[in-house]
Amino acid sequence: MKQELKRRLISLVEQDLIDIETALHGNLTPNLPLVKEIAGHLLFSGGKRIRPLLMILSARLCGYRGNDTIGFSTIFEYLHAATLLHDDVVDEADLRRGKPAAHTQWSRPKVVLTGDFLLARSLSLAAKTGLPDIIAVMANITEEMSQGEIEQMEQKGNARLTEAQYMTVIQRKTAVLLQGACKSGGILARAGNKKEAALDAFGYHLGVAFQMADDLLDYTAKAETLGKNPGADIREGKLTLPLIKALENAPERDRTWMLNVIADPDFDEKDFNTLQKQLHQYKGIEYTEQKAAHHIDLAKQSLGVFTPCQAMDTMMLIADYAIARNV
Amino acid sequence: MKQELKRRLISLVEQDLIDIETALHGNLTPNLPLVKEIAGHLLFSGGKRIRPLLMILSARLCGYRGNDTIGFSTIFEYLHAATLLHDDVVDEADLRRGKPAAHTQWSRPKVVLTGDFLLARSLSLAAKTGLPDIIAVMANITEEMSQGEIEQMEQKGNARLTEAQYMTVIQRKTAVLLQGACKSGGILARAGNKKEAALDAFGYHLGVAFQMADDLLDYTAKAETLGKNPGADIREGKLTLPLIKALENAPERDRTWMLNVIADPDFDEKDFNTLQKQLHQYKGIEYTEQKAAHHIDLAKQSLGVFTPCQAMDTMMLIADYAIARNV
Repeated sequence: MKQELKRRLISLVEQDLIDIETALHGNLTPNLPLVKEIAGHLLFSGGKRIRPLLMILSARLCGYRGNDTIGFSTIFEYLHAATLLHDDVVDEADLRRGKPAAHTQWSRPKVVLTGDFLLARSLSLAAKTGLPDIIAVMANITEEMSQGEIEQMEQKGNARLTEAQYMTVIQRKTAVLLQGACKSGGILARAGNKKEAALDAFGYHLGVAFQMADDLLDYTAKAETLGKNPGADIREGKLTLPLIKALENAPERDRTWMLNVIADPDFDEKDFNTLQKQLHQYKGIEYTEQKAAHHIDLAKQSLGVFTPCQAMDTMMLIADYAIARNV
Repeated sequence: MKQELKRRLISLVEQDLIDIETALHGNLTPNLPLVKEIAGHLLFSGGKRIRPLLMILSARLCGYRGNDTIGFSTIFEYLHAATLLHDDVVDEADLRRGKPAAHTQWSRPKVVLTGDFLLARSLSLAAKTGLPDIIAVMANITEEMSQGEIEQMEQKGNARLTEAQYMTVIQRKTAVLLQGACKSGGILARAGNKKEAALDAFGYHLGVAFQMADDLLDYTAKAETLGKNPGADIREGKLTLPLIKALENAPERDRTWMLNVIADPDFDEKDFNTLQKQLHQYKGIEYTEQKAAHHIDLAKQSLGVFTPCQAMDTMMLIADYAIARNV
């Protein structure tokens, strides 16, 4: 089922993915070879290119037929890579997409500055659209994401994080970029407020579901498929929905045990297995899966204002894939 | 003389400075109090506001009479502050403008992310100009500055740094922002290519002279007036023009002594005094002063295409002040 979904999706976006890859290489032209090396390390390590794809598909859904969408779509992959570089420095994570994170190979300052460079490159391309609305979207993304990350740092280890606070964090750190990519496709197509808002809503719900699926994978996936060690979130003191919900549902004794794990995240594999079982037992996993599925439904409904077409079919498949994937 | 220059300049820009200050407070509205605190720590610690002033004056010089210049001028102060926050993390400097650098009070990741927030805020304002050319200028500034910083890191401790390499570094890390501020004033005023290029040239030469004056102060100023310890550049392995030139002129014995200081920058005050004397003796100071003065002449000449007016007088005074200041 999952494999079949992935096959269908890939057949629909294959050519776009090739074009995006070419554009990502073509637009990355720093003066310094070192910058290209650091930026390339992350950029060409197997990203899913969801953000540029969404911009391209959104523009097409609005009837845009210009051939500049591929080039402009890299805006959102460079911006994404820039934030990942800064986040990795923030999180001190050692692995990213199964490879050593950039800051383990180069000094942190160089990684931060390469992030700045990618942000600037993204900005240069946005300027070329000639559309200040796209710049405003980008500015909003960067403001929200930087504040979202700081908020997450402030909340580190906070065992009382509520579902509402979790939603704010994932909106800021993930959904806002997908919203921006979708909305910008509409802006490029001069689709008007109503359609742009619909695309924004699609991106929001997709982004929320996407992050929930990510947070689930951190408890359910294997290291080989995940490209990083599972349990990373709780080790970094990040409470995500599966745990928030399980804490809510667990009886006193198990709740206390979980709180101890959060307070002292230097646990062994056996403890992690116990935690995984409790997240299932107390419906943290199930609840999060249901929420993610609900947001996917809402994402699909947002597209109701558009006339069905191949771009819409592809976006629907991406929505299905967002919660069916195992990576 | 210096004091008289400063008095005249301040009387001309006093109201603008007050307005800039109000706008800097008014436009800094993050969701998180912590972000405001970190950003405010640097932003309101006595910056000279040269960059916003230059944008305002450049727009006026081109005959612009809109009352939105003050608001837009904060673009360049936020951008400047963003790069300072990232640079301080990069340089690991402990003091900035006589206060502890932000990263000594908050964690480095928070400082990096606050820098991102300020960059985004700057971008939001740029989007509001509705002028993609201003966005392009900003993107160029960020690309050049991030690469300039990385280049400077790569060159750390390189005793063979040439004057030409030094010029590339200071153009990228300082001049580009002043160029951008001046040019954007022209863009805002729709002044046309010729005048925009003249403003760009003014900003370039002013920026180069400004950085040379900074690099001189690091060897000639006292800690109290400088707001940081003199000799910081060489301690960080940064070779600047006074030293580059002195190395070129010194006889073998003194040259070797200087190279030893560069190689092992853990020197005491006596060594630093000796170094200062050698920079004078081998004309490193004098040569840099002459170069800076020459760039100030070129800056002033660039304004030849404009009709004299009060904005021009003020810009001329700023140019004089750039190399006469002792802070």
